[in-house]
Amino acid sequence: MILEKIQRENDIQKLNKEELAILASEIREFLIEKISHTGGHLASNLGVVELTMAMHLCFHLPEDKMIWDVGHQSYTHKILTGRREGFDDLRKYGGMSGFPKRNESKCDAFNTGHSSTSISAGLGYVKAREIRKENYRVISVIGDGALTGGMAFEALNNAAHLGKNFIIVLNDNRMSISENVGGMSRYLDGIRTADVYNRLKRNLEKALRKIPGGGEQIVSHLRKTKSSIKQLFVPGMFFEDMGLTYLGPVDGHNLKELVRAFKEAKRVKGAVLLHVVTKKGKGYLPAEREPSRFHGTGPFDIRTGSPLEKKEKDTYTDVFGKIMCDMGKKEPSLVAITAAMEDGTGLGEFHRRFPDRFFDVGIAEGHAVTFAAGLAAGGLKPVFAVYSSFLQRGYDQIIHDVALQNLPVVFAVDRAGLVGSDGETHQGIFDLSYLSMIPNMTVLSPKNKWELADMLRFAIAYQDGPVAVRYPRGAAYDGYKEFRSPVLYGKSEAVFEEEDIAILSVGHMFETAAKVRKKLKEAGLNASLINARFVKPMDEEMLVTLAKDHRLFVTIEENVKTGGFGERVMDFAERMELPVRVLAVTLPDDYIEHGSVSVLRKEVMLDDESVYKQILTVYAGMQHTEEKR
Amino acid sequence: MILEKIQRENDIQKLNKEELAILASEIREFLIEKISHTGGHLASNLGVVELTMAMHLCFHLPEDKMIWDVGHQSYTHKILTGRREGFDDLRKYGGMSGFPKRNESKCDAFNTGHSSTSISAGLGYVKAREIRKENYRVISVIGDGALTGGMAFEALNNAAHLGKNFIIVLNDNRMSISENVGGMSRYLDGIRTADVYNRLKRNLEKALRKIPGGGEQIVSHLRKTKSSIKQLFVPGMFFEDMGLTYLGPVDGHNLKELVRAFKEAKRVKGAVLLHVVTKKGKGYLPAEREPSRFHGTGPFDIRTGSPLEKKEKDTYTDVFGKIMCDMGKKEPSLVAITAAMEDGTGLGEFHRRFPDRFFDVGIAEGHAVTFAAGLAAGGLKPVFAVYSSFLQRGYDQIIHDVALQNLPVVFAVDRAGLVGSDGETHQGIFDLSYLSMIPNMTVLSPKNKWELADMLRFAIAYQDGPVAVRYPRGAAYDGYKEFRSPVLYGKSEAVFEEEDIAILSVGHMFETAAKVRKKLKEAGLNASLINARFVKPMDEEMLVTLAKDHRLFVTIEENVKTGGFGERVMDFAERMELPVRVLAVTLPDDYIEHGSVSVLRKEVMLDDESVYKQILTVYAGMQHTEEKR
Repeated sequence: MILEKIQRENDIQKLNKEELAILASEIREFLIEKISHTGGHLASNLGVVELTMAMHLCFHLPEDKMIWDVGHQSYTHKILTGRREGFDDLRKYGGMSGFPKRNESKCDAFNTGHSSTSISAGLGYVKAREIRKENYRVISVIGDGALTGGMAFEALNNAAHLGKNFIIVLNDNRMSISENVGGMSRYLDGIRTADVYNRLKRNLEKALRKIPGGGEQIVSHLRKTKSSIKQLFVPGMFFEDMGLTYLGPVDGHNLKELVRAFKEAKRVKGAVLLHVVTKKGKGYLPAEREPSRFHGTGPFDIRTGSPLEKKEKDTYTDVFGKIMCDMGKKEPSLVAITAAMEDGTGLGEFHRRFPDRFFDVGIAEGHAVTFAAGLAAGGLKPVFAVYSSFLQRGYDQIIHDVALQNLPVVFAVDRAGLVGSDGETHQGIFDLSYLSMIPNMTVLSPKNKWELADMLRFAIAYQDGPVAVRYPRGAAYDGYKEFRSPVLYGKSEAVFEEEDIAILSVGHMFETAAKVRKKLKEAGLNASLINARFVKPMDEEMLVTLAKDHRLFVTIEENVKTGGFGERVMDFAERMELPVRVLAVTLPDDYIEHGSVSVLRKEVMLDDESVYKQILTVYAGMQHTEEKR
Repeated sequence: MILEKIQRENDIQKLNKEELAILASEIREFLIEKISHTGGHLASNLGVVELTMAMHLCFHLPEDKMIWDVGHQSYTHKILTGRREGFDDLRKYGGMSGFPKRNESKCDAFNTGHSSTSISAGLGYVKAREIRKENYRVISVIGDGALTGGMAFEALNNAAHLGKNFIIVLNDNRMSISENVGGMSRYLDGIRTADVYNRLKRNLEKALRKIPGGGEQIVSHLRKTKSSIKQLFVPGMFFEDMGLTYLGPVDGHNLKELVRAFKEAKRVKGAVLLHVVTKKGKGYLPAEREPSRFHGTGPFDIRTGSPLEKKEKDTYTDVFGKIMCDMGKKEPSLVAITAAMEDGTGLGEFHRRFPDRFFDVGIAEGHAVTFAAGLAAGGLKPVFAVYSSFLQRGYDQIIHDVALQNLPVVFAVDRAGLVGSDGETHQGIFDLSYLSMIPNMTVLSPKNKWELADMLRFAIAYQDGPVAVRYPRGAAYDGYKEFRSPVLYGKSEAVFEEEDIAILSVGHMFETAAKVRKKLKEAGLNASLINARFVKPMDEEMLVTLAKDHRLFVTIEENVKTGGFGERVMDFAERMELPVRVLAVTLPDDYIEHGSVSVLRKEVMLDDESVYKQILTVYAGMQHTEEKR
C-alpha cells in the first residue's frame, strides 16, 4: 500500500508518478471506508484529493502555510501530514477534529470552521512574513460557495491591494453544501463554460460585420484565430481588473495539470487566484449523485450509500420544516430565508411548495438579516432559519437593521446549544446572550417538539417586533406532551408546583431539569419545575410568586453564563430584593470541543447527575447557614 | 427663493429647468450655512445634490422607496421632503436626526447609519413588492466606499439573482470617509478612466495584427470604428456578467444626464446598477480640498472653512494615536489596522511614520478581525482600532478566528458608550457584553487619559491572548492624574478606601463615580471608590475583600445591563454568598437617540445626580430593612 509510505508531511514528495496515481485511489478508498464507519464530511473531501496532493507536492510543510476555508475538506491534508490513524476516532470526544486545528498539528496553519475566512487569514500571514522578512508560501483554499460570503470579498478586495506572493486557490465545484446561487456563481459559470467568450465573440462579429468594405472578410479571419482572440477575453477578467492575477480554469482532478499550475502560480509576484474546477464526491458514485447528502454524513453502507442509522424520531429541524409548510398555506405573507442551508435548516419542502417565497441568499448571513428587515419593512413576514453559531455573522445587522426599527422578523435559531461532533466552531453557545442584550428583541426556547410548533406559530403571528426561537440539533424531545398550554407573551409555564426549590429551565434543558427534579424527589427534596419559555422578556411575575415559597432558584440553560438567563434572574432577584438564592447552571466560559452531546454535557457538568449534585451542594450550604443563625 | 417652493415631497417636480438650476445652488448654500452653525456631515451631502434632485424628479414619494446607504448623505433628501426647518436642530436632542429615520418621515423607507446595508434592504422591498403584487420603485444609493463592505457584495450577488425592477445607484466619489483602497476601487477606477477599454483595445490590436494576411488591414479598420468596439468592452462587465445591467458612468453633477439615466434605468426589467460619478464637497472649495475633514464637521467659519470650536483638550483618540507611534518605534512587530477610519481612529500619524505597518482594509470589519488573527498567527502584534458599534460587524470573527485560537490581537475600541449626535446606530453600548461573553478575551477600560496610555502599553505587551481596551469619544478625562499605579493583570485599583458603600466604576464612568462619591460624602455617607480597570477577568479578590466592610456594591458602566459588568458582579456575589447588596447602574434596555452626551446621560439616568439618587434610594431601603430586623 502506497498510503503506508506517507508517515509525515512532505513524504508524498518521495513518490514517483505511478505511485502518486495509486495514492489518489487509495486515499479515496480510505476516506470512503473510514467515513462509512465514523460519519463525517465525505463529498467535499473526495473532491479535493488531487488538489491537496498537488499542494503537498509543490509546497513544504510546516514552513509553508495552507489555510483551508471552512476546513471540512482537510481530510486528505490530514492524511498527508501523518494523521491517518486519527480517522478511527474522527470527530469523537478526545479524537481527531474534522477541521484543521493548530493544536493538532504544526501543519495546520489556521483553525477554520465557519465559511469565508481563509483569504483574510492568509493575507495576515503574507504581511507578517514580509514584515518579519521571512520566506514561506501562503496558500488559501476557498470554495466557490464560500466566495459568496462577504468577508471573502472584503479580503479579496484587500488582497488585490496588499498581497504579494499569495496564492488563493478557488476550489470551484459549483456547490456550497447545496447548489450555489447568485451573481458570483453566474460569473464563474461564465468562465467555466466560456460563455463570456462566446457572447463577446458574437457581439464582436456583429460589430465587425458593420465595418464598411471588408467587415465580412474580417470576421472570417477572426474565425480562424479563435485561440488568440480567446486570450483577449481573459477569463476571470474581473479578478484581473481588481489587481489579482488570474490563472485557470484548471482540471482539479488532473494532478499533472495542477502541479504545473501551482508552479506557474509560484512565479507570480502579486496575489494570484488559481481557479480549479473540481467535482464534489468525485470517485464515489453515490456521493457524486447526491453531493448534498454526502456533504456531512452519518455512517453508511459503502455498497449502496444508504445510511446505516435509521432516523427514528423527528428532529427539531423537521418540526420547524413542517410548521413552515403548514403556516405557508395559511399565511400568504410568510417567506423563508436561508444562507445556503436549505436542507440543514429543514426548508426543502417549503422551497418545493412555495418557490416564490423561499430565498437562498448564499453563505451571507449579514445580508440575509438585513434582507429580512427589508422584506418586513415591505409588509411581509420573513423567517430566517439559521444555525446559532452562523447567526453570529449577522449580529450587527440584527441590532442595526432589524431591532432598531423593531421589524417583525422571525429568527429560527437552529443548532443552539451543544451540537456535538462539529465541535468548537459550531457550538451554539452564545445566542441567548447576544440576542437578549438587543433592545426590542423577544427570545423563546421550547421544552419539546410540540412547544416548538406552538412557539413558531406564536412568532409568525407576532407583529410587534423581532422574535427569535432557539432550538437544538438532533431528535426533538417528545416527553411531557400533555403539558401544552398556549404560548402567552412573556409567560413561563409552571409544570410542577411545589415548595422550597424552584428549577427554571430554558428550552431543551427541560428534559434534564425534569430528571433532576426526579432525583431530588428521590432524595426527599421538593422542587417546582418551571419551563421559562421566554428568555426575554423574563416572566418576572412568576419569579415574584415563586419567591414566596421557594428559597432556592436554579436556572438551567445551555449557553454561556455572561448575558444568559441565569444572570438576568439574579439581577431581578437582587433588584426586587427577593429572599432567594440563585444557582445559575450554565456552560463554562470556554470553547467546547467535539464529541457526542451526551459526553460533552457530562464534561461541562450540564448532565442531570452533575446538576443534581450542584443543587445538593448549594442546598446543603444553605441549610448549614440557617442552622448557624 | 426657489427653496421656499419646496414644502413637501414631489414639489420639486413642479419646477422648470431654470428653477432647478437655481435650486441646486440654493440647496448648497443652505447646507453650508446650516452646517456651519450646527455641524454635521457636509462633504458627502454637497456631493449628491444633483443626484438627489434627479431621484426626486424621476420617482414619486412616499410610494417609491429610496434607501440611502449609511445615510449621512440624506440631507438634500430631507430638504426635498419638507424637512428644511429641521436643520436648525440637526443632530440635537429632540431635533432632526442626521440619518434617515422611518419615524421622522414616511419618505424615509429604511433607517441607516452603518455602511453597506442598502442593497440588502432594497432587495427586501423588491421581493415584498412582487409577492404583495404592489407597484412601486426601489432605489438603493450606495457609495463606492460602502461597496467595499462585504455585505454589499453579498447583496449584489443576491440581487443579480433575484432582483427585478431594482435600481442600485453607485455613488462613486472615490472616497469612503478617507480615500478608498482595494481591488474594487481599482476596478471602478478602470471603468472611470476607460483603462479597461484601452488595455483591451491594445491587446486586441496586437492579436489581430498577427492574423496572417490582412492583420494590419483589420487593425486599421478597427481604428475607424472606435465607438462600436467600445460598446463591446462594456464598462462594468463584471456587473453585467453577474447578471446586473450596468449603466454609466454618468456625470453626477449634470442634472439632465442624471434624469436621462434614471429614465433608462426604469426601463430595465432586472436589477440595474447605475454608476454615477460625483465629487465629495462639490461647490464649496474648502470641502472639495479637504473632503475627509468635511466629512463630519463641527461648526466652522464659512469664509475660511476653519473650525469655530478650538479643541482644548486631547481626545482619547489622540492619546491612542500617540501611544501607537511611541510603541511603534520600540516594538517592530506592532502593526495597526483600520477599516476605512484612519483619521477617526487616530492612526494618521502612525500611518505616516510606519507606512509598511499600517493597513486600511476598507469598510470591512469582519475581514479586519480575521486579517488581524492571521497577522498574529504569523508572529506580529496587530492592533485593530475600531469604533465600538462597527466592531459589531466582526463579532463572529472575534469568537471564531481570534479568541478560539487565543491569538494576541489588541482591539482598540473607540467611541464606546454614548457618542452623542450620531445617535442610535453609533452608540457603543453593547461592547462590554459582547466582548465579555467571549472565552479567552480580556477587557479593560481606563479611568482617564494616562490610564489609557498605560492600558494600551499593557495590551500591546500582553502575549497570552486577545485584549480589548474600550474608551469613549471626545475629550480625555484628565482628573486624578496622581493615581497611576501599574496595570496588573486582572487587578482593579482602589482609589478611595472607606467603608459601607463601595462604588465600582468601569472606565470613563470613573469621573461620574468620583462626583457621586463626593455627593455621598456631603450627605454624610462613606463610600469607597474602586476603578475596575479589568471588566474581564473581574478582580474577584477585591470583591471578596470589599465585602468584609461594605454592605452595598454600586457598579457603574456605560453599557447595557445584560452581559455587563454589574450582572457579573452580582453573579460572583451570589456564588460566593457575599453579604452585600449590588446596585448595577447601567444603560437601559433601549436604543438611545442623538443629542449631546451630557443631555443623554441625564435622560438615561447615568449622570452623577441620578446615580447619587439611585444609591440613596437603595441605601435607605437597606436601612429600613435592617431596622425591621
